[in-house]
Amino acid sequence: MLPVVLASHRGPASFSRTPSGLTVKRGAGGLVTALMGLAEHLTDAVWVCAAATEADAAVAAEHEGHSVEIAFTPEPELLAQDETFDGPSVNVRYVEVDPERHRMFYGEIANPLLWFVQHGLYGRAMDPDITAETHRAFDEGYVAVNRMFADTVAEEVEQRGGRAIVMLQDYHFYLVGEMVRERCPDAVISHFVHIPWPSPDGWRILPPTMRESLLRGLLGCDVVAFHTRRFARNFLACAAEIVDCDVDMRGMAMRCGDRAIAARAYPISVDVEAVDKLAASEEVAAHRATLTSYVEDGQQLVVRVDRTDPSKNIVRGFRAFGILLDEHPELRGKVTFLASLMPSRTDVPEYADYLAQVGAVVAEVNARHHMEGWQPIDLRLQEDLAFALAAYQLADLLVVNAVNDGMNLVAKEAVLVNQRDGVLLLSESTGAHEELGPHALTLHPFDLQQQADAMWTGLTMPTADRRRLLRGAADEVRGNDVERWLRRQLDDLLAKAP
Amino acid sequence: MLPVVLASHRGPASFSRTPSGLTVKRGAGGLVTALMGLAEHLTDAVWVCAAATEADAAVAAEHEGHSVEIAFTPEPELLAQDETFDGPSVNVRYVEVDPERHRMFYGEIANPLLWFVQHGLYGRAMDPDITAETHRAFDEGYVAVNRMFADTVAEEVEQRGGRAIVMLQDYHFYLVGEMVRERCPDAVISHFVHIPWPSPDGWRILPPTMRESLLRGLLGCDVVAFHTRRFARNFLACAAEIVDCDVDMRGMAMRCGDRAIAARAYPISVDVEAVDKLAASEEVAAHRATLTSYVEDGQQLVVRVDRTDPSKNIVRGFRAFGILLDEHPELRGKVTFLASLMPSRTDVPEYADYLAQVGAVVAEVNARHHMEGWQPIDLRLQEDLAFALAAYQLADLLVVNAVNDGMNLVAKEAVLVNQRDGVLLLSESTGAHEELGPHALTLHPFDLQQQADAMWTGLTMPTADRRRLLRGAADEVRGNDVERWLRRQLDDLLAKAP
Repeated sequence: MLPVVLASHRGPASFSRTPSGLTVKRGAGGLVTALMGLAEHLTDAVWVCAAATEADAAVAAEHEGHSVEIAFTPEPELLAQDETFDGPSVNVRYVEVDPERHRMFYGEIANPLLWFVQHGLYGRAMDPDITAETHRAFDEGYVAVNRMFADTVAEEVEQRGGRAIVMLQDYHFYLVGEMVRERCPDAVISHFVHIPWPSPDGWRILPPTMRESLLRGLLGCDVVAFHTRRFARNFLACAAEIVDCDVDMRGMAMRCGDRAIAARAYPISVDVEAVDKLAASEEVAAHRATLTSYVEDGQQLVVRVDRTDPSKNIVRGFRAFGILLDEHPELRGKVTFLASLMPSRTDVPEYADYLAQVGAVVAEVNARHHMEGWQPIDLRLQEDLAFALAAYQLADLLVVNAVNDGMNLVAKEAVLVNQRDGVLLLSESTGAHEELGPHALTLHPFDLQQQADAMWTGLTMPTADRRRLLRGAADEVRGNDVERWLRRQLDDLLAKAP
Repeated sequence: MLPVVLASHRGPASFSRTPSGLTVKRGAGGLVTALMGLAEHLTDAVWVCAAATEADAAVAAEHEGHSVEIAFTPEPELLAQDETFDGPSVNVRYVEVDPERHRMFYGEIANPLLWFVQHGLYGRAMDPDITAETHRAFDEGYVAVNRMFADTVAEEVEQRGGRAIVMLQDYHFYLVGEMVRERCPDAVISHFVHIPWPSPDGWRILPPTMRESLLRGLLGCDVVAFHTRRFARNFLACAAEIVDCDVDMRGMAMRCGDRAIAARAYPISVDVEAVDKLAASEEVAAHRATLTSYVEDGQQLVVRVDRTDPSKNIVRGFRAFGILLDEHPELRGKVTFLASLMPSRTDVPEYADYLAQVGAVVAEVNARHHMEGWQPIDLRLQEDLAFALAAYQLADLLVVNAVNDGMNLVAKEAVLVNQRDGVLLLSESTGAHEELGPHALTLHPFDLQQQADAMWTGLTMPTADRRRLLRGAADEVRGNDVERWLRRQLDDLLAKAP
């Protein structure tokens, strides 16, 4: 088994200083959870990530820039340098990025520029503006941070004799593959893109120098991986159109100069065991008890759980629900839309505006359709996974109508735990749709009427049909959990090792 | 030579009733001018178009729905049914569409929905909304009007024994090809798309049923033609991605079921002779005399001519000029930006908003940089071809920075008539860039700094270099005028006749 060097922006654990000393917390987010599963099972692995706190940077400095070993007991715990631990642990190498450089890298380029480009959210007539600021943020932020990560990754590979599997993660590090390739010609390098990959036109929003360097960076890898075959095909089209590679669309492969690169689809999933366990917890049961009144006496519950990101299409979802109530006034007092939304990136103007639009449409629909003791939409601005699981359990409909989404794990979690033969309404533009589409009602994200019609279809569907759909979806998720996602990638990469 | 049946939304001539009787005017627009060149030279041709006025409809009714013959002397003149005319004439078949149907067809679907989708102008988070209205406008407007045109085209083909070349024009009639094919299996059918054709992601804004029916409509043709190879490649990608055709990207061909369809690029051009003639006219000279003060005493002139369409990128062009003046204050009083802009579709909110943004940025830049007796930007809201030609003649820089443009004939006209070794600044996202890119400074439409830098480069470029670029561009246009554009298509279509 070759050593593995992982790199992602957020790491598996982060330190903070409290009055009682140094504490360490497990990182949040699906990617961290997924990669933990991998890292715990490898013999020689190191995870390169940004120091997210001053304490992370201090711990890294104390270890003179080497990696630190964190045990999971299951709570994370820093091991002393000479300590041995008989259980799952991860070596973490923190990269310290100064705040201004990080702001340019993350706050100007990765988010929102790349995020918006890849989710197709720019209107083009008035936004975006690429300015001297943007160019500076790209050169001194994005390129520079990618260089720092590439140097760190290359160092870790070299410490392992130059032969290792390198697994780069997401849109923060498109340039790293090519940079590592230069120093480590024998490494097997993969890059996983967790968000949508648009077709060539989408990339034309970026200046030619930027879009070409991002592409060339990825083409330094052996494998570029996505959640869906559609994103992989878009990548192949970009390799042909933007940097003139020789592309085999059917074989999902490219030749660029003297190198062969594969495009692959590995749909990510959830940790089925962990989701099941949390769903059975007291905490979820307590939340569920507060929500059961929504499904008593023949009432039905529509649920959505999202970040308040413009790509999530929350406003159109509520407007569609408003249309449903316009067309079926008999549903008033009978069907409630419960939305648990986590406020996101509220310092970015587009996000703040979008949150305001969400508030506005909720007020509008509730004002139009409320009755004594009943509101059509129950909007909770919160981040609460246990609450979300309770809502998934009770949902008659689960709405995922995203404009664009790399995967969408809400859909996968919800079908695992639902207890009421709930119907998944799933946007055709989510990655999850390639797997779950046959077990869901497909939503067209721009079509308000179609979304209202699909809600009606779902609410009035015979129980046997609902049950068949839900079981199909749950079986699909149980058959491909996050462990398998990782295993398939690692097997393919090992097969490529020289 | 086979008969030819043309179809386009606007026709070559339109009637109106005046106190002195029926008058007829030549149609405006580049497409009409281009197609006139063709129609005048064919032995048996008919041009199917919408009745644009009540008088058009009345004339059509008087002829009991048959075509009418219009002579060009060169002014258009209606010929009596038994009259013969020894000169260029065109048979015109007017299709009467009732106003409400036309509003749905044109005012809701073709513009702005298809126009915005194909120019990539929707921001997706908040626009567009597809509603029940939209579906109704598609079914009862777009589909119905396409059916009317298909029936008329098929009737004209059948009157010619079922064998004819059918040349359908633009985004108004994507469904006509398939409809005509059903009735006229032996016709050779082509469809020319004059606006950009986006890659598959762009089309996902339309509901699946709409985008699939548009694609299938076009795949009823033998040839689908565009201004650039890039748009043709995007079409091939759509045929593979949206309706699952078997695509040969290198051979620019598809197989869909048992039919073979070619994608082709024929870049449209201007009528070189007509442009030269107008440029030499008294009217243009008179306008030129009013503008020469802008280029006296070593001053330089920047020119743009456009409709006030969000796709034209007028606001960013002015902002880039503002940046140029910020960075080079020595240009104040020395370089003026003259913009002749034709207000467009001001009844559409997006267009009205865009016009307001144009006014706002002009005021802002002029307020920031004006000096006694000098304004940085001279904005003329007008439609005046003679004025435009005079401006082209005097321009040191001609700015075409469109976000997206099927071709852009302004660039081609300007390089033909310019008299001051003017430099063309041309967006990479115009169709014209495939031909004129090597003879221009390329603009990146979203990059304000790059546009400001390109303006500086153009203004300070040595005369010999400017002259070389301009001559290269003018030679390119003279070598491929609109006559050749038509001839190449017709030759290719004749070769396909059974």
